[in-house]
Amino acid sequence: MTKMADLNPTHFKWRMKGPVAVIQLDRPDRKNPLTFESYAELRDTFRDLVYADDVKAVVFAPNGGNFCSGGDVHDIIAPLLDKDMKGLLEFTRMTGDLVKAMINCPQPIIAAVDGVAVGAGAIITMASDLRLATPEAKTAFLFTKVGLAGCDMGACAMLPRIIGQGRAAELLYLGRSMSAQEGFDWGYYNRLVEADQLEAEAIAMAARLADGPTFGHMITKTQLNQEWNMSLEQAIEAEAQAQAICMQTKDFERAYKAFAAKSKPDFKGD
Amino acid sequence: MTKMADLNPTHFKWRMKGPVAVIQLDRPDRKNPLTFESYAELRDTFRDLVYADDVKAVVFAPNGGNFCSGGDVHDIIAPLLDKDMKGLLEFTRMTGDLVKAMINCPQPIIAAVDGVAVGAGAIITMASDLRLATPEAKTAFLFTKVGLAGCDMGACAMLPRIIGQGRAAELLYLGRSMSAQEGFDWGYYNRLVEADQLEAEAIAMAARLADGPTFGHMITKTQLNQEWNMSLEQAIEAEAQAQAICMQTKDFERAYKAFAAKSKPDFKGD
Amino acid sequence: MTKMADLNPTHFKWRMKGPVAVIQLDRPDRKNPLTFESYAELRDTFRDLVYADDVKAVVFAPNGGNFCSGGDVHDIIAPLLDKDMKGLLEFTRMTGDLVKAMINCPQPIIAAVDGVAVGAGAIITMASDLRLATPEAKTAFLFTKVGLAGCDMGACAMLPRIIGQGRAAELLYLGRSMSAQEGFDWGYYNRLVEADQLEAEAIAMAARLADGPTFGHMITKTQLNQEWNMSLEQAIEAEAQAQAICMQTKDFERAYKAFAAKSKPDFKGD
Repeated sequence: MTKMADLNPTHFKWRMKGPVAVIQLDRPDRKNPLTFESYAELRDTFRDLVYADDVKAVVFAPNGGNFCSGGDVHDIIAPLLDKDMKGLLEFTRMTGDLVKAMINCPQPIIAAVDGVAVGAGAIITMASDLRLATPEAKTAFLFTKVGLAGCDMGACAMLPRIIGQGRAAELLYLGRSMSAQEGFDWGYYNRLVEADQLEAEAIAMAARLADGPTFGHMITKTQLNQEWNMSLEQAIEAEAQAQAICMQTKDFERAYKAFAAKSKPDFKGD
Repeated sequence: MTKMADLNPTHFKWRMKGPVAVIQLDRPDRKNPLTFESYAELRDTFRDLVYADDVKAVVFAPNGGNFCSGGDVHDIIAPLLDKDMKGLLEFTRMTGDLVKAMINCPQPIIAAVDGVAVGAGAIITMASDLRLATPEAKTAFLFTKVGLAGCDMGACAMLPRIIGQGRAAELLYLGRSMSAQEGFDWGYYNRLVEADQLEAEAIAMAARLADGPTFGHMITKTQLNQEWNMSLEQAIEAEAQAQAICMQTKDFERAYKAFAAKSKPDFKGD
Repeated sequence: MTKMADLNPTHFKWRMKGPVAVIQLDRPDRKNPLTFESYAELRDTFRDLVYADDVKAVVFAPNGGNFCSGGDVHDIIAPLLDKDMKGLLEFTRMTGDLVKAMINCPQPIIAAVDGVAVGAGAIITMASDLRLATPEAKTAFLFTKVGLAGCDMGACAMLPRIIGQGRAAELLYLGRSMSAQEGFDWGYYNRLVEADQLEAEAIAMAARLADGPTFGHMITKTQLNQEWNMSLEQAIEAEAQAQAICMQTKDFERAYKAFAAKSKPDFKGD
């Protein structure tokens, strides 16, 4: 296992609040667009989190009142126009690899959304495990507006599972913005929070998860992402195995002993 | 590629509003029941749309204040009672083929629902990509009321993906009517519209889609229908490939150039 | 086929209201925890229901103002701490087998939820086909609070299909209680009912199902549970076959004849 608390990335901001890593894109003057470099560095960071034992949860936070304006028009879209199919597929696979890395890292990821979260920015919120937003959050899967399909980085698979097929179809075909209230009503956002409390709330929720049985949370995340295309019978067997594994952790014993002693368990993630 | 604008079907109404085809069943005195003939002609029409390049979106509209009363009791149910298993399966596969044809045609289909939309009529709304309704819309998957199971033409697969498993179970077991307000609250209807504006709104939405990157929309439709039983990893790879294809369309370049020129892109679907 | 109306189980209460079986756990002073014995007897009972032709629907009802407090801390969790992996997997498979038995029995199951429904108690409501609740119902998938993962008895597969992935993630990661109103708004509960009417309403709904085409309902249940990991094409073919089978039942003919005679069909389930 490695330590990642002292990570010092070049293309985004990273800081720790206890065991919670807080990530922010860092071009607030342009609403935090993604570049080839920040895509790749984010992907590598989420991949490395698989082996990090000092990070227990991640908050992906806004910066300067906006979450992320998606792939930069000049830095990303312009160069794509000159690429051949090999180069295009390299790019779309690299963006997909960011989502895969987010899904496959063991830490729950909480997106804290304010202002603009569009294109790949919307995808990052979608690929997170939990989502908070301010009333000002505007989330748009606007790929159609740049002449593309709605199927970007897993959106046609993941968005319907969160908000239902009909609503997802509308957002993906029309590219229109989903308001914060819609997002809450539709089960996209778990909670709406005022802007001045957003980051603190997200970190508090992440800290609560970091305090919990983190081995169990890792398994919860794995199963939530793995079981959609299992049969119910397969899923039930998969969970029987996964939960039996969790029953051999010390956290399971700690919870029982705390219960017996009428105290609060002190989970350690092993 | 063929032209379908001048289609002159026998068993339903067909007209064009620009690149938008408007379909209406045409027995308004009986709330527009389906017959063996209209089923088959609709199936064939949606199949032909795969090769039509003059139709960019489809609106399935009501007629005389009702959408569709489902399979005609006298014309369909009575003859079914005399069929053997071979004949019954021929019928159920033919009805299923209508849904498959709706799913597989490249044009987005917008259901505009008013009044009664029951049985196979409800299925047609379900198999559409987007749905508008008037406050008077009554949608019932009432197969149970004719002694059958709720699993008709894909309902046990598609309805839960739109409104969730619990609500779908209620509608399919009880056969009760879903009100327009429920349909909106549950994500079945994308918007509620007064009856006198329904068709115009649906056509306007379809025209907006027809104006967009229609190659991209076709891929969006394909992926929304294909990815439910992929793993997330498979879906992300499928989207990397699908989106790379879209990045080779001229519409992608048109969007970039329009952005650079601060103008609106003029998408052409290639 | 066997008769089950006179079943006299040892570890829970069983009674018939016409063709509706009513099940209640029976330790109301402790909010009805499950034990190894009641788990196993419930599993065996739902398995036997496959062959019972005198039970047409099942209501799982609360007792003393609570539904079920889950696996008993002293009777279940304490002994689990001493088990090896073989013993743990035997236990988790046994609990999963209860869910499988509930899914695979032909009778629709209606959960009538009041007060506490937590842990395995929440799972029983989730594995039911329809759900009613009182405003006082508190449902919590609190496995995380005992140091485990949220993936218990199929929760990571089934809960997202009912309420969406984002809401399910919150409940499973945080273990927090879902209020009755949330459950209704999210499509978990089909209806909220005052406590003094809950059991009567659930039995009335079950009686309505028992009165209906029960062969069809059995097929509806089968398909609703089987089609999640089929492709849409496979699901449509599966439904063509399943509905063709239903068209050979006498209930289909009964419905037609009743319609022709302007009377109400008298379904018999064959």
